[in-house]
Amino acid sequence: MKKPPLTEIVIIGSELTSGDVVDINGGWLAARLSTLGTRVEKITIVGDREWAIEDAIDKALKSINIDYIIVSGGLGSTSDDVTTKAAAKVTGTRLVISDELLDHIKSTMAARGKEMHPSQERQSLIPQRAKLLKNSIGTACGYILHHKGKVLIFLPGVPGEMRKMVDEVLIPELSEELAAKAPSSKFFHTFGLPETRIEELISEPLKGFEELDISYLPSSEGVTVKILSRGDESERIIEESVRMIREKLGDNIFNEDRRDMEETVGNLLNMKKKSVSVAESCTGGAIGKKLTNVPGSSSYFSLGVVTYSNEAKTKILGVQPSIIEEHGAVSSQVAAAMAQGIRRIGRTDYGLAVTGIAGPDGGSPEKPVGTVYIAISSEEGTRFKGLRFGGDRNDIRERTSQAALDILRRELIS
Amino acid sequence: MKKPPLTEIVIIGSELTSGDVVDINGGWLAARLSTLGTRVEKITIVGDREWAIEDAIDKALKSINIDYIIVSGGLGSTSDDVTTKAAAKVTGTRLVISDELLDHIKSTMAARGKEMHPSQERQSLIPQRAKLLKNSIGTACGYILHHKGKVLIFLPGVPGEMRKMVDEVLIPELSEELAAKAPSSKFFHTFGLPETRIEELISEPLKGFEELDISYLPSSEGVTVKILSRGDESERIIEESVRMIREKLGDNIFNEDRRDMEETVGNLLNMKKKSVSVAESCTGGAIGKKLTNVPGSSSYFSLGVVTYSNEAKTKILGVQPSIIEEHGAVSSQVAAAMAQGIRRIGRTDYGLAVTGIAGPDGGSPEKPVGTVYIAISSEEGTRFKGLRFGGDRNDIRERTSQAALDILRRELIS
Repeated sequence: MKKPPLTEIVIIGSELTSGDVVDINGGWLAARLSTLGTRVEKITIVGDREWAIEDAIDKALKSINIDYIIVSGGLGSTSDDVTTKAAAKVTGTRLVISDELLDHIKSTMAARGKEMHPSQERQSLIPQRAKLLKNSIGTACGYILHHKGKVLIFLPGVPGEMRKMVDEVLIPELSEELAAKAPSSKFFHTFGLPETRIEELISEPLKGFEELDISYLPSSEGVTVKILSRGDESERIIEESVRMIREKLGDNIFNEDRRDMEETVGNLLNMKKKSVSVAESCTGGAIGKKLTNVPGSSSYFSLGVVTYSNEAKTKILGVQPSIIEEHGAVSSQVAAAMAQGIRRIGRTDYGLAVTGIAGPDGGSPEKPVGTVYIAISSEEGTRFKGLRFGGDRNDIRERTSQAALDILRRELIS
Repeated sequence: MKKPPLTEIVIIGSELTSGDVVDINGGWLAARLSTLGTRVEKITIVGDREWAIEDAIDKALKSINIDYIIVSGGLGSTSDDVTTKAAAKVTGTRLVISDELLDHIKSTMAARGKEMHPSQERQSLIPQRAKLLKNSIGTACGYILHHKGKVLIFLPGVPGEMRKMVDEVLIPELSEELAAKAPSSKFFHTFGLPETRIEELISEPLKGFEELDISYLPSSEGVTVKILSRGDESERIIEESVRMIREKLGDNIFNEDRRDMEETVGNLLNMKKKSVSVAESCTGGAIGKKLTNVPGSSSYFSLGVVTYSNEAKTKILGVQPSIIEEHGAVSSQVAAAMAQGIRRIGRTDYGLAVTGIAGPDGGSPEKPVGTVYIAISSEEGTRFKGLRFGGDRNDIRERTSQAALDILRRELIS
């Protein structure tokens, strides 16, 4: 099996190390580079200080296995943009004014009806022998520099500019070099089985494939299984593994391409020409929000209600006060009555309802925080399910909405 | 000016270096540590490979200036959770079974009605002399280890568990040690003014303070202004700056402590003993979800409806079909009628309603994608506001829900 080229990503910005802003460039770059067939070994985030940037680049240069070093940030025109200076120092390269870059800055500013600011002249300095990467929507250009057998790639830090540069300029530049090395991979987005159970089901039958990487990515949205193979046989290995995994995990796989459960559910509703209304309590609108995340969801979703109080459950959904009194607002009986009520007033094929205790307060020994009842009503009757989730208020609400959509999905494919 | 203690954060997860998941723990930890007075020098993200984790911890241990090393991830029970093994190897510490931890795992599983899985026994191994940090909502515990004058802190990687552990256990543990070193800082969370306008208003009057750092952090939730000072005079400087900023930004500051608009609105509703119902269209439940993010929101929120179809607007909220026909479903008139309708059926002090075009389809030359109407109804009458937002479907929905809550907030303080 051929070793994939290894990459280290260095992200620069003091707003990131202070935690004022959460970095999104590292993850985005890692995903893009993975599809190109390189493997990202490390993402390092450092502040806008020259010695810190020098140290990060220097350490990456000294990592014996690393083939590509991608540096993002600190190429702008303000005084804290010192990446190029650090790059020149670490690689022992002279900085020279690039006429091409100077022209680019002038014409970009002119297109905005502005003159070049004197401070921007500094921006046209790049290391000698570096190959310019043009920025189609901003002044800060990137560049590629070869040094001691490694490829150093410098990119701006503004996410929109960085992404455009990677897709429009960098990938075409690198793809020839990398094309032969792209791995085969496949995702399975599942809901309903814990990570350990999935591992039990599929790790044994897949043991035969030595050149197969399997990873499990659990989140409140379910567990995603990713398989990846790089060898010459990779396509065959992936194909056989896919067959095996589909057989073992069955309906627990809700999608193989898109991670969003609401898209799968929306497609099923569209395909079967069915509609749904939703009555929520503890999720407070999260299920409706998820369903309407999808453009065009108005063709199958018309009404949602959040009945947080008992009065609203009774008045809007017609839940009998005696049911609430006897079983409590968090009960399978109330969930079922809510589902029937919302189906009736929404005049939809399905009525989906949840009631539960998201916490932190409101739990009891019999019904602790995390207790949730989900019910689905259709012309065939009403079914319900009791669940108990761990985590904090936010986790419980997220998991409940995902579980409710999954129950609707299973109803649609049954 | 005293040097703050320096911290390096090491985040572990192959799903992060592959770009399958974007890390949010590094940024969150950096923000929390900054408020404690330490300065984060570097955030390093590596995969779940033992040698990579060893290398990252080892490099941090060898960084002469670093005082604290925070490692998050890889403490679970599956075979790719190898952080503890790496930690033991790098620090030359023996692994021992912690009875305290074993009991914790058993009782956590028992509370979920489950037995401990044999693979979880491995999870009770921690380095000798390490001090346990309990996980109140999961099995994976953290620990603190002193080594060569540095403090190593190990935390789980599940964001909810990690955050709870930091706030409930780690900060009380560290705060005495760090208290004297914290810089003075202050946040102002604003809504209603663009970043450039805020800068215009406050940068000139604050120029006198040389030892003041000002940063502007825009997001779909508004613009946060952060000021920070470390010098001996820091308290006085912050105090005077706060006075100045409050005067200049006035009601546009919705909170100085918490970034969540829904908390501010919830506190105001509680304080004034007022209640609200919400009728949503394009936001699909996002406003209800935000309001019910807050524990205890049932005291002021009882009913939300998502009327996505015209029929639901008419049938549930009593919006006259003639109004929809004449002005369109996305109009100030329909927003006003929705607000009046939801206030009536929810029997609350306020009725809040939005209707708009979140896109990508449905726009027209007069009402392009991003056009939104928000109305608020109370016993004093109904007011409305037309807005136009940029961005994609998700941005538009986020900004609309934030703007709706801001309108309610301004009504509550007027």
